[in-house]
Amino acid sequence: MVEMTPQVLGYMAGFLTTVAFVPQVLHVFRTRSTKDVSLGMFLLFSSGVALWLVYGVWISSWPVIWTNVVTLALSLCVLWAKWKWR
Amino acid sequence: MVEMTPQVLGYMAGFLTTVAFVPQVLHVFRTRSTKDVSLGMFLLFSSGVALWLVYGVWISSWPVIWTNVVTLALSLCVLWAKWKWR
Repeated sequence: MVEMTPQVLGYMAGFLTTVAFVPQVLHVFRTRSTKDVSLGMFLLFSSGVALWLVYGVWISSWPVIWTNVVTLALSLCVLWAKWKWR
Repeated sequence: MVEMTPQVLGYMAGFLTTVAFVPQVLHVFRTRSTKDVSLGMFLLFSSGVALWLVYGVWISSWPVIWTNVVTLALSLCVLWAKWKWR
């Protein structure tokens, strides 16, 4: 049994907010429809995640780097789908 | 001029990934259409943000608490819209 510490909780939270984008990516690639997905949201979100990535590199935090690399990749997939299937 | 430190960068990143949800909320409330928005994404994301909020309270970090209170409220607005305008 893993003891619940703030760090374990942080990893659980980071895991959830990262994998959350998987069903959205699958959804737009399956339906090829992105009408209801906000372009503004994914532009702002991808920019923010890119800054989080720079932040992670700056403070040398591998958990911050890895979760944001994955989230950025997923977010860019949604942006690409939005551009392709407007 | 604000000196660029990891903390300033973190605030900029947090600001972007939080306000990103504003255009998505406006979009679904204006169109009343949520077909392309993934329910799974917003369920997982809201759960993750709720854990980030608990994490913020646990480590007594006001920036973590506030950004996640706002993000959770916006994410729950999208979930509510998804439930109402299926």
